[in-house]
Amino acid sequence: MGKLILENSSEIFRPSARTERTPASVTRDILKVIDTPGMISFAGGLPDDSLFPIQNLKNIFETSVSKKGAKLFQYADTQGHSDLRAWIADRYYPGSSADEILLTSGSQQALDLLSRYFIEEGSPILLEKPSYLGAIQVFSSYAPSFIGINYGEEGPNIEELKYTLATSSEKPKFFYCIPDFQNPSSYSYSLEIRNSISKLLLENGVPILEDTAYRELYFEEVLPPSLCEIGPGHTISIGTFSKTLAPGLRVGWIKAPKMVLKDLIIQKQSMDLHSPTLNQELVYGFVSSSKYEEHLSLIRKTYQKKSEHTFECFRNNFGDSLPLQISKGGLFYWLEFPQDINTNLLFKKCLEKGLATVPGSSFFVGEPERNHLRWNFSNASQEETKLGVERLFQVYKDMAGV
Amino acid sequence: MGKLILENSSEIFRPSARTERTPASVTRDILKVIDTPGMISFAGGLPDDSLFPIQNLKNIFETSVSKKGAKLFQYADTQGHSDLRAWIADRYYPGSSADEILLTSGSQQALDLLSRYFIEEGSPILLEKPSYLGAIQVFSSYAPSFIGINYGEEGPNIEELKYTLATSSEKPKFFYCIPDFQNPSSYSYSLEIRNSISKLLLENGVPILEDTAYRELYFEEVLPPSLCEIGPGHTISIGTFSKTLAPGLRVGWIKAPKMVLKDLIIQKQSMDLHSPTLNQELVYGFVSSSKYEEHLSLIRKTYQKKSEHTFECFRNNFGDSLPLQISKGGLFYWLEFPQDINTNLLFKKCLEKGLATVPGSSFFVGEPERNHLRWNFSNASQEETKLGVERLFQVYKDMAGV
Repeated sequence: MGKLILENSSEIFRPSARTERTPASVTRDILKVIDTPGMISFAGGLPDDSLFPIQNLKNIFETSVSKKGAKLFQYADTQGHSDLRAWIADRYYPGSSADEILLTSGSQQALDLLSRYFIEEGSPILLEKPSYLGAIQVFSSYAPSFIGINYGEEGPNIEELKYTLATSSEKPKFFYCIPDFQNPSSYSYSLEIRNSISKLLLENGVPILEDTAYRELYFEEVLPPSLCEIGPGHTISIGTFSKTLAPGLRVGWIKAPKMVLKDLIIQKQSMDLHSPTLNQELVYGFVSSSKYEEHLSLIRKTYQKKSEHTFECFRNNFGDSLPLQISKGGLFYWLEFPQDINTNLLFKKCLEKGLATVPGSSFFVGEPERNHLRWNFSNASQEETKLGVERLFQVYKDMAGV
Repeated sequence: MGKLILENSSEIFRPSARTERTPASVTRDILKVIDTPGMISFAGGLPDDSLFPIQNLKNIFETSVSKKGAKLFQYADTQGHSDLRAWIADRYYPGSSADEILLTSGSQQALDLLSRYFIEEGSPILLEKPSYLGAIQVFSSYAPSFIGINYGEEGPNIEELKYTLATSSEKPKFFYCIPDFQNPSSYSYSLEIRNSISKLLLENGVPILEDTAYRELYFEEVLPPSLCEIGPGHTISIGTFSKTLAPGLRVGWIKAPKMVLKDLIIQKQSMDLHSPTLNQELVYGFVSSSKYEEHLSLIRKTYQKKSEHTFECFRNNFGDSLPLQISKGGLFYWLEFPQDINTNLLFKKCLEKGLATVPGSSFFVGEPERNHLRWNFSNASQEETKLGVERLFQVYKDMAGV
């Protein structure tokens, strides 16, 4: 008997509604074109990979494998590396323990897990406007009803949040937020806003999902306490080593009350049994060593320099026509163009000129604002940045007719 | 302002229905008790970790990191390591290409991905009776309507499948099956059944999800062609390196028609961006080397010996009271007790005596059969096996009153 041949495969594979409602991520699609010759990219949130402590990781691998052997390669517990969990609890969540931490495959998996845990089709969820596009993508696949709250320089608009909570016909499942050097806006919450938001949401019985991905990347001033430190009982915290160590290792975490964590562990069990032990071991070996603080200082200094250089390039080209403030941390500049500049179009014209960024509209739920671009400054070299900003200015000039 | 204190967290965290319907996996729970002093475990599907080629993996790590450096630790493409995908396509799916492969975090993530792709709440899906409990767990969280088809020594009951397809009020989304040394039954499909099943499902417009986890673990005779080789247009194939190399690396794959794969990649993007490159590089380094065939031979020989020894122990203790046939491959014996022995109870009594196995009822959808135990033979030593079978016989004797 020969091969059985199928004539029309679209009749046999019938995807669920979920498949249709999951949008492809713009940045992931952009990552695919950045290998085009001559393309300069400021699109991804890519760390500077010359900072990865590769020699240290090599040494840790060598030592760990000699010491722990086969255990690193066998099936392991779903919750993940207990020493690493204890380290995370100790460093970021004073008074908590390893029991309250679940290790995940990057913070993206943390977002997926929490979506599974919380979202019912049609149920309202709160998030910032703008917000992280990877979160919008994964939330979308669970079909919630999105409610955006405007995020300004000091944090979300509290009056708007109050009004929304008071008038929402169904209690939102959670408030998802990035209070530290937000992706994409680079804004952070003031201490006052942190306290008010935590209190307001507690009073309304709405849990907080706090994403701390950029929290360690301050250039000079440490940020105010995290929302999880302020209200640990009603806040779930998400973290990652992607920005502070290396994203390719795919190690992130969730800190949640034990009652919630228990269910999250079962969900993760069903999703992938557990994340690779080896990667968690490499992370633990490095962060628990004396090198880690030194490494963080180096990252902060390097990114600060890059951000300053980027700022200079914008000033030199755009003068006062872009209302830009120098960055205090994180990985991005959030470029605000005049209202009549549609950055979806600007973005396309830039791609044609060999320049990749991300159009601001990707970061909005509901009606998007269309006059922003997100500009990553952590990955490109000084020369690339200079050239990239020049290219952007040329395209902008042509479009604006200035 | 001090910490904000939550008085009753069960009022604030309101999980989705999904959370409730995802059962905890029995084996994962058993994995937690196997560290009890004196416990001998035959519960997990754990490979013999003395077979992991650790020295080779060390060398590959060393060479790869020197050669590829930071690239192994940076964000990477969602679809995964292109050389490894090409290797998989070439070895397992003649005539296919790397484009048709998506790398996943073990085959468990492949099952989750395909659940997301296919299952609507309430939609019927077909699977074998018994079936893999990890698949039942993840499918359950998407709330399909399960239809079980009895799996005998030559494969699923074709008449039953025909009747089900003819009478089902809604076309099933897929048929999930393990045609090679199935977990838990260790049965395989004959060539005749493979051909009939593939043809029948094609005629009925129902796609096949074929799980090939144990396909390489034959002891003497190679199995007939896979369902994907027989009907590549209507079959999606799932594979893993967990049994042939090391499960802790968490590297598995999906082979699917390009039209389907495109959507699966977007789903995976939303789930975890991508799986760790380093792990894929370690797998590729090993499987593409001259050592791999040698390694597979060693695994097959070792497991065959273990299976023979296990069989001997059962014969010596149970005589003819267990209708056991010697294993031809895979990792398990599927022990069938007399109908009046409830193996849920037998299992519990065994745990009290320091013996862990898995009760057969965990592997059934709908009304379970209650007279089987799944017994893994790949992990325990000869001595442990001898002692374990003796313990089982003691408990059985007491229960059966023989």
